[in-house]
Amino acid sequence: MHIREILAEAERTGNPSFSFEYFPPKTAQGVQNLYDRMERMYNFGPKFIDITWGAGGRNAELTCEMVVQAQTYLGFEACMHLTCTDMGEEKVNDALRKAYKAGCTNILALRGDPPRDKEKWEATDSKFRYARDLVAHIRQTYGNHFDIGVAGYPEGCDDNKDEESLLDHLKEKVDMGASFIVTQMFYDADNFIRWVGKVRERGITVPIVPGIMPIATYASFLRRANHMNCKIPEEWMAKLEPVKNDDVAVRDIGKVLVADMCRKILAAGIRHLHFYTMNLAQATRMVLEELDWLPSPDRPLKHALPWKQSLGLGRRTEDVRPIFWRNRNKSYIARTQDWDEFPNGRWGDSRSPAFGELDAYGIGLTGSNEQNRKKWGEPTCVRDIADLFVRYLNKEIDYLPWSEAPVAEEADLIKKDLIELNKRGLITVNSQPAVNGAKSNHPVHGWGPSNGYVYQKAYLEMLIAPELFPEIKRRIEHHPDLTYHAVTKAGNLYTNAQFEGPNAVTWGVFPGKEIVQPTIVERISFLAWKDEAFQLGTEWARCYEAGNPSRLILEEIMNTWYLVNIVNNDFHRGETIFEVLEGLEAPNLDKVPGGQANGVANGATNGVEAST
Amino acid sequence: MHIREILAEAERTGNPSFSFEYFPPKTAQGVQNLYDRMERMYNFGPKFIDITWGAGGRNAELTCEMVVQAQTYLGFEACMHLTCTDMGEEKVNDALRKAYKAGCTNILALRGDPPRDKEKWEATDSKFRYARDLVAHIRQTYGNHFDIGVAGYPEGCDDNKDEESLLDHLKEKVDMGASFIVTQMFYDADNFIRWVGKVRERGITVPIVPGIMPIATYASFLRRANHMNCKIPEEWMAKLEPVKNDDVAVRDIGKVLVADMCRKILAAGIRHLHFYTMNLAQATRMVLEELDWLPSPDRPLKHALPWKQSLGLGRRTEDVRPIFWRNRNKSYIARTQDWDEFPNGRWGDSRSPAFGELDAYGIGLTGSNEQNRKKWGEPTCVRDIADLFVRYLNKEIDYLPWSEAPVAEEADLIKKDLIELNKRGLITVNSQPAVNGAKSNHPVHGWGPSNGYVYQKAYLEMLIAPELFPEIKRRIEHHPDLTYHAVTKAGNLYTNAQFEGPNAVTWGVFPGKEIVQPTIVERISFLAWKDEAFQLGTEWARCYEAGNPSRLILEEIMNTWYLVNIVNNDFHRGETIFEVLEGLEAPNLDKVPGGQANGVANGATNGVEAST
Repeated sequence: MHIREILAEAERTGNPSFSFEYFPPKTAQGVQNLYDRMERMYNFGPKFIDITWGAGGRNAELTCEMVVQAQTYLGFEACMHLTCTDMGEEKVNDALRKAYKAGCTNILALRGDPPRDKEKWEATDSKFRYARDLVAHIRQTYGNHFDIGVAGYPEGCDDNKDEESLLDHLKEKVDMGASFIVTQMFYDADNFIRWVGKVRERGITVPIVPGIMPIATYASFLRRANHMNCKIPEEWMAKLEPVKNDDVAVRDIGKVLVADMCRKILAAGIRHLHFYTMNLAQATRMVLEELDWLPSPDRPLKHALPWKQSLGLGRRTEDVRPIFWRNRNKSYIARTQDWDEFPNGRWGDSRSPAFGELDAYGIGLTGSNEQNRKKWGEPTCVRDIADLFVRYLNKEIDYLPWSEAPVAEEADLIKKDLIELNKRGLITVNSQPAVNGAKSNHPVHGWGPSNGYVYQKAYLEMLIAPELFPEIKRRIEHHPDLTYHAVTKAGNLYTNAQFEGPNAVTWGVFPGKEIVQPTIVERISFLAWKDEAFQLGTEWARCYEAGNPSRLILEEIMNTWYLVNIVNNDFHRGETIFEVLEGLEAPNLDKVPGGQANGVANGATNGVEAST
Repeated sequence: MHIREILAEAERTGNPSFSFEYFPPKTAQGVQNLYDRMERMYNFGPKFIDITWGAGGRNAELTCEMVVQAQTYLGFEACMHLTCTDMGEEKVNDALRKAYKAGCTNILALRGDPPRDKEKWEATDSKFRYARDLVAHIRQTYGNHFDIGVAGYPEGCDDNKDEESLLDHLKEKVDMGASFIVTQMFYDADNFIRWVGKVRERGITVPIVPGIMPIATYASFLRRANHMNCKIPEEWMAKLEPVKNDDVAVRDIGKVLVADMCRKILAAGIRHLHFYTMNLAQATRMVLEELDWLPSPDRPLKHALPWKQSLGLGRRTEDVRPIFWRNRNKSYIARTQDWDEFPNGRWGDSRSPAFGELDAYGIGLTGSNEQNRKKWGEPTCVRDIADLFVRYLNKEIDYLPWSEAPVAEEADLIKKDLIELNKRGLITVNSQPAVNGAKSNHPVHGWGPSNGYVYQKAYLEMLIAPELFPEIKRRIEHHPDLTYHAVTKAGNLYTNAQFEGPNAVTWGVFPGKEIVQPTIVERISFLAWKDEAFQLGTEWARCYEAGNPSRLILEEIMNTWYLVNIVNNDFHRGETIFEVLEGLEAPNLDKVPGGQANGVANGATNGVEAST
């Protein structure tokens, strides 16, 4: 989506919106940490994010990578910064091509800073002397594909303090095809408002987005303001200077100062704020909190679909996915990233051989072997492993091999039942409760446009001991509302599903639209997921050396247990699946492979217990 | 669907099923009447129908036509009879090609009667001496496309009374590839059961379908039995002969005799009965009633979709249609019959120019001008026309220009509101009530597989006087749940629908399947329907000569009124649309064009009345 549309929407509705800016970190670990942070900050609800241009070699590549990551995996609408004077035409074109391929449709076109070691700045390529040259070049090369933003300088620019001349340049950039302006940071709201007036007097009508720099520490506040030559109101210094050594106090006072500035700007008719996060979450979050702009149960973050959409090239129309990857979003996108199209919003063909590829990026275990061993400890029996799942459900562990992110909020509804199952050695990999027509703005279940209703069929996916499987199969097949698929690592498939095709397990009914059915259960994709699910467990086992009991128990489970999914097709009832599993317990819960039972012996040693 | 599958399903479930046989009538009017009758008999619930082969020229063509009609428009699974000895190979191939094109997948392969004027029968084409030759030819030419039935003769055949030799022939026919047997008529159940035993002894294992001839009159009963040399049990004669001049008594006694015979056959393990209807409904209906096999509110006829599917070639997967043709099924099929495919069960492209063709068969007014003038009388003002719609809703008129069949049962739920609207000059063309999750076997709203839930958004389509339109538009646009499209004959379109795409107004949720959404409202198809709707009114006007007041008032409505559809997107509420239209009344309800008001003058003469 073009940023000008996002800004127009805020104008039209009068509901203010905001965006975040990030820059390429210096280390690989920094990059990974930033991705994790960005993922959490997604839930603050920014309408788009900017990735600044990392001038030179690796940094430039990193900008492109971050844009891909943001668009494809994190679900952010991204705006890529691009400088021109320090790059040749070829490099500029290369960056644009990468942005295009990532599905990115927004570029902030900048001149580029002069290299630090030169007194006076010189252009690398004679084609690009000014940002306006880059604007013209992008328009010429890509037509209207990219929405183009340009920088505005309410307090002057590094090498040009002449406001009129800067306004001349701004007018030229807009005339060349820029459709929005993002300003440099400032703390003087009155000056900004005055400057906006001057911009408008020049006949520049495109939206102006103020750049807001939250206050993290006193030192960084001063340093940045000085670096940008940005005027600090006296009142601010009077309030911050006395507490300058108390970071907490600085942030508390700073958030109010910045929020007050934001309110002043909004009162002047601005509808969108752009936050310079400096790759940190806290200071920005505090300002948003102070403005009461963070999502809350009363005002939940709006999702178009129940899963996070990929905005990668050709994927914007995707609106159907198998439920199996619900907790493995990145793996699903990685598996399907080479698919050419999503006709009717769906993977082109789940029979594509690419669907089964297990060596693509993102499909393996999250985290290093060492990290994981530390996180998941040294389980030596089924009960130990089941305990990890209980701790995950209790939010004491933030990821598991089959779930890349902390447990979803909606699992709280069935948490008690899930924990109960795990305690009996039925290891729950994935689940969703039944929902019979919740309003689409429901804080937990809601997604999609307003005034709609959303539905879910109850779903449960488990690892099941082979001794238990025949009885579970018998019980499920006895029940008219349940359909299931079960499969071993070797691929022995059992199912009572009459149709091979998809079973919609999540759907929504919205005004003026067709029914949207974003999540399905389907045989062919379950078989693809099966490979991944057993592979993940095997990779976990390999975190331990050969002969280690943890490795043995994990391998035993992977090699002999069943992966079972159950759908309750009667979405009016949620509890049926748990009722059907009542009284079942895996045998040998405490048995250590090749050794004695671990701790207190378990009563059930073999086969199936009678149901109560 | 192959008849062998239908028969296997009856075997599998133990639920008996039945089928009807029709023959090509002699006159064009007879054909039209038969189609009407077949349409009514569709609701008895036959699993398929047979069309007998009309030997020679026009009659053979008529058989093919009837197969097309049955498959394409009437929604019957058809089995085409085909004789071979009186036809050359070319004619046989031509008939098969026509059956194939109609989507027909079942052939009853017959030898053919000897021409009456020849003592001994001779084959026309040396390739075809026996029915088995035709069976072999069909298998050779079409592989498994056609399911092939053959005739069985429990009481001997016209020119062969030798049971053993007939059983030899039957075995040969089955060995050549026939997969079911339909017997000639008989009244002696014991003999039939004995004969079935002989068939099985021969190692013939395909299903045997007994041909049942209901009793309409004593004369026809005797004539047919004698013609077929079929033994009449003494008890039957003893009961029927005494009342032979009382047709009603003959039918009443006959239905019990035939039903008792059917019960005997069923008790012997037969699961499907084939009725020789002789193109009449009553006698067959009485037997079905006696067997308690007719659909009832407790045991409704199962529909796969809420509209009658076309089984034409390539259309079996069609599962989405615009709501506008809900009452003009034939016209919709005719408009779309040349479409090559229905990808995702939907018209390939509603932008196809063919969609707008108004001169295809079946698109115009049902009935002749004279018939229609007689049926609809001589309306001279809006109130007269609205009265016709009230009478249609009260089932006093069985069709209107915009509705080819009597009003649907579900309209009863909103009948009072619809009549009220018509009385105020808001002429209701099409409607459906809201349904919030009725069980899929609901007697009125239900459709689709068992254990599902079906939903509808309330829908109303009307002709609206131009003076009323601005107020209606204002009220609808004021309501957050309503979307509408309005258009004049000239094509001025008004809508508040945000998306151009389809709005699903009927959908169903079923175990193990995707959501099925068979009925939609959509702009592009509404515009195509607009042309047809105004054309139909114009054709109605032309039933009257120029200058006739009926013609004038109908033309005025077509030329100046709006066609308006409204969807209430909140399917939890049904009454909203009627509430929104409260208190509105068309002006000049009694005004005769070019003349004085007709009858009592109406208070509202101009524009919009205040809402109450």
